[in-house]
Amino acid sequence: MKPQVVQGTRDFSPQEVMRRNYIFDTLKHLFLIYGYQPLETPAMENLDTLTGKYGEEGDQLLFKILNNGDFLTQLKPEKLDSYQNLEVDKSDRKKVLQKERIAQQIAFDLCKRGLRFDLTVPFARYVVMNRNEISLPFKRQQIQAVWRGDSPQKGRYREFYQCDIDVVGSDSLLYEAELMQIYDQAFYQLNLGVKIRINHRKLLEGIAEAVQKKELFVPMTISLDKLDKIGWNGVGNELSQLGFSTEDIDFLQNLLSTKNWEQIKLKFSKENSSAQKGLKEIDEVLAYLKSYRFQNRFEVDLTLARGLSYYTGCIFEVEVDTQLEGQSEVKMGSIGGGGRYDNLTGIFGWEGISGVGISFGADRIYDVLLQLDKFQKAEKAVGDVILLPMDKDCISYAFELAHFFRKAEIKTEVYPEASKFQKQMKYADKLGFPFAIIIGTEEIQSGLLTLKDMASGTQYKMSKEDILKKLGLN
Amino acid sequence: MKPQVVQGTRDFSPQEVMRRNYIFDTLKHLFLIYGYQPLETPAMENLDTLTGKYGEEGDQLLFKILNNGDFLTQLKPEKLDSYQNLEVDKSDRKKVLQKERIAQQIAFDLCKRGLRFDLTVPFARYVVMNRNEISLPFKRQQIQAVWRGDSPQKGRYREFYQCDIDVVGSDSLLYEAELMQIYDQAFYQLNLGVKIRINHRKLLEGIAEAVQKKELFVPMTISLDKLDKIGWNGVGNELSQLGFSTEDIDFLQNLLSTKNWEQIKLKFSKENSSAQKGLKEIDEVLAYLKSYRFQNRFEVDLTLARGLSYYTGCIFEVEVDTQLEGQSEVKMGSIGGGGRYDNLTGIFGWEGISGVGISFGADRIYDVLLQLDKFQKAEKAVGDVILLPMDKDCISYAFELAHFFRKAEIKTEVYPEASKFQKQMKYADKLGFPFAIIIGTEEIQSGLLTLKDMASGTQYKMSKEDILKKLGLN
Repeated sequence: MKPQVVQGTRDFSPQEVMRRNYIFDTLKHLFLIYGYQPLETPAMENLDTLTGKYGEEGDQLLFKILNNGDFLTQLKPEKLDSYQNLEVDKSDRKKVLQKERIAQQIAFDLCKRGLRFDLTVPFARYVVMNRNEISLPFKRQQIQAVWRGDSPQKGRYREFYQCDIDVVGSDSLLYEAELMQIYDQAFYQLNLGVKIRINHRKLLEGIAEAVQKKELFVPMTISLDKLDKIGWNGVGNELSQLGFSTEDIDFLQNLLSTKNWEQIKLKFSKENSSAQKGLKEIDEVLAYLKSYRFQNRFEVDLTLARGLSYYTGCIFEVEVDTQLEGQSEVKMGSIGGGGRYDNLTGIFGWEGISGVGISFGADRIYDVLLQLDKFQKAEKAVGDVILLPMDKDCISYAFELAHFFRKAEIKTEVYPEASKFQKQMKYADKLGFPFAIIIGTEEIQSGLLTLKDMASGTQYKMSKEDILKKLGLN
Repeated sequence: MKPQVVQGTRDFSPQEVMRRNYIFDTLKHLFLIYGYQPLETPAMENLDTLTGKYGEEGDQLLFKILNNGDFLTQLKPEKLDSYQNLEVDKSDRKKVLQKERIAQQIAFDLCKRGLRFDLTVPFARYVVMNRNEISLPFKRQQIQAVWRGDSPQKGRYREFYQCDIDVVGSDSLLYEAELMQIYDQAFYQLNLGVKIRINHRKLLEGIAEAVQKKELFVPMTISLDKLDKIGWNGVGNELSQLGFSTEDIDFLQNLLSTKNWEQIKLKFSKENSSAQKGLKEIDEVLAYLKSYRFQNRFEVDLTLARGLSYYTGCIFEVEVDTQLEGQSEVKMGSIGGGGRYDNLTGIFGWEGISGVGISFGADRIYDVLLQLDKFQKAEKAVGDVILLPMDKDCISYAFELAHFFRKAEIKTEVYPEASKFQKQMKYADKLGFPFAIIIGTEEIQSGLLTLKDMASGTQYKMSKEDILKKLGLN
């Protein structure tokens, strides 16, 4: 039998683990400096915690877990009868359909748990369950895997990692400013130039209101969001089909091509209460950030639309700054996003808790850093040096020498047998050790070991103390 | 609705996460220094990878995942007919049983994936799948959650973490020695005194052979393993019931009370080939470790028996050294174990690959360290300082000051509103900040801020630069 990995999931090789941890560790530490406390929740949640939270489509993508143990006590006689009653139809096709429904029903009745679909619902559950211990505002970071039964394709996995920070229990806009700062610092530390955009749901509503198309707010914003891809020709066509007049479209084009924030503000009437609320809140966020010097591009973008069924205030999105990174291939779309939402915990009966949060798209960030060759700072999985014993009597010496190096935090390997020199060298080379130490009887007696630079092939005769100094500097 | 965590699983609070990461990070780093490369595999494996690997009992504890998508195409008509044919019996009880069997059958037919049960089988799968890329010997570390459908009880969870290192592809006993050194170093770094015991499967076989009871090797070792708990009276009774004579039991008692390794070796005849093989291999391991100074107790223990259906060579076990830690309550049993096994990858068709490995019982180690109050070195989740703005105009100043501290790696929080002083202090206190900085208009103008030591209540007037110095020293 040929074993396989589950479709849509991945093994992470040592080098991948080290590089992923470089991203995660950078973010975790930064989040901690900003007061976001780490939380971890179980992979499994009760299905009644998960279902109904992600829409019908989401529910269908939930991975359900078959209950363990005694099926008989789980399936009550009434249930069994109800399955029986489903089997009424006689035509062949319908019989199959009926049985399929029975099978599905039985299977569902035998599943009361599922794998978490995101980190937000488990977080809300945690907050509600621990409401008496938690002090609000509560800031948490969470980096864990989630599972979705989507059909796998390039860049879309059934197991992938989410990396979220959220504050709940305060509607202070200070947090919006803080989160923008964190995006900026995070990508600065990861050495990736990005563009951070901010918008506000109410401002999008206000734009629709400005052209008396409040009822078309959602399709309008979805269309505006495509501006980057299809340009004003495309967007204009779409809007016109939605019922926007030429004047409306001209107004929108003029508004959205205005880049100066003060001028944007002047384009909305004082009576447009949605717009004014959005403008005022963005203004406050900008005021907090006035003296902060962004390392990345940061801008208000009225075309930005995301999570409109979910976010109620500011919305954010981050993408690679292709002007800065200068790589046309790096078209990864969004590598982060978030916003303010009301009532996170309402789904579990605790109403009126406002929150704001952002995520980092770990898989995409990984891909981008790899493409741009930006993992120099990631710790390497491969060792610093390998000790090669030339005959059997040298193995013990090599083992003791390894301890000498390891104590000094040098990643050290010992070839475990006195195999042929060529075989040992081949192993050292294939694993990518930068240095090898060749240990023979003569070397042990003289105390002068042979250090080989694997890349250049150069050999040095050195004492173990001198080798330690040299390795410590690498 | 009152949300709940799945029975047998746990949320990890910020402090718990930090402490668990202290353990994991200590181990991960040590493993890396010793050349064990990190591997991560997906939570889900195909059921044909998992089933048949853990015995019948294990198979029943596997969490199976319901397939997503179209049930109809998954359940072929022949299958549906076979379910139908199961429904033959008419008596009520039997009808229920039949239906339960149908339900179970249907459910199983609808599951082709399961959650990983341990880290060993996924590791074996990885090695076989990547046999062309991997160089042997291959050393890997893996720290991930596993899931088992056991009935939850104190200290037994349905989701728990395993922490394993293994070398495959070499039968060199150097690795046995290396693993003993790693156990010693790991618990030394975690500041926990332990007793590390080693034994050999062949030596246990040799003991049975020495009293001509080879066929009773397994029940004999299971009985000897209880010596700690039930003493020689209990063990003697058990052995006598198994058919051991008084002379046999005397021989065993004499053998096992001999603590000197050289004397132990003399008690076996040269013809006892099992014993001689075990003695020779342990001898070689001890020789490698001759010049290594253990920080913990390390001993050969002929009563140690574990994983006899699995291990073929040396076996190891670690427990808290109650003499050192002096706590009679710390009776946690084994906090680590392992051994050499043949043919890890044989289950996936790659025969003859020997391996040796050890695990760390992360949950138990956590519990022990907590009980013994040994988490001093773990980083704290709580911040270093919180900034308290006394009126609305001070919030921006506080936000900028926070950035000043955060740039210097001080974990900093800002209270996000100009709430009443008492409310802010209560928050600062409940979250456990060691310091608060009170920021009013006067403080901003003078540049002298009020730093409050939360434990003592002492207040200092200091510049932000002086505060930074003071906080940096804590």
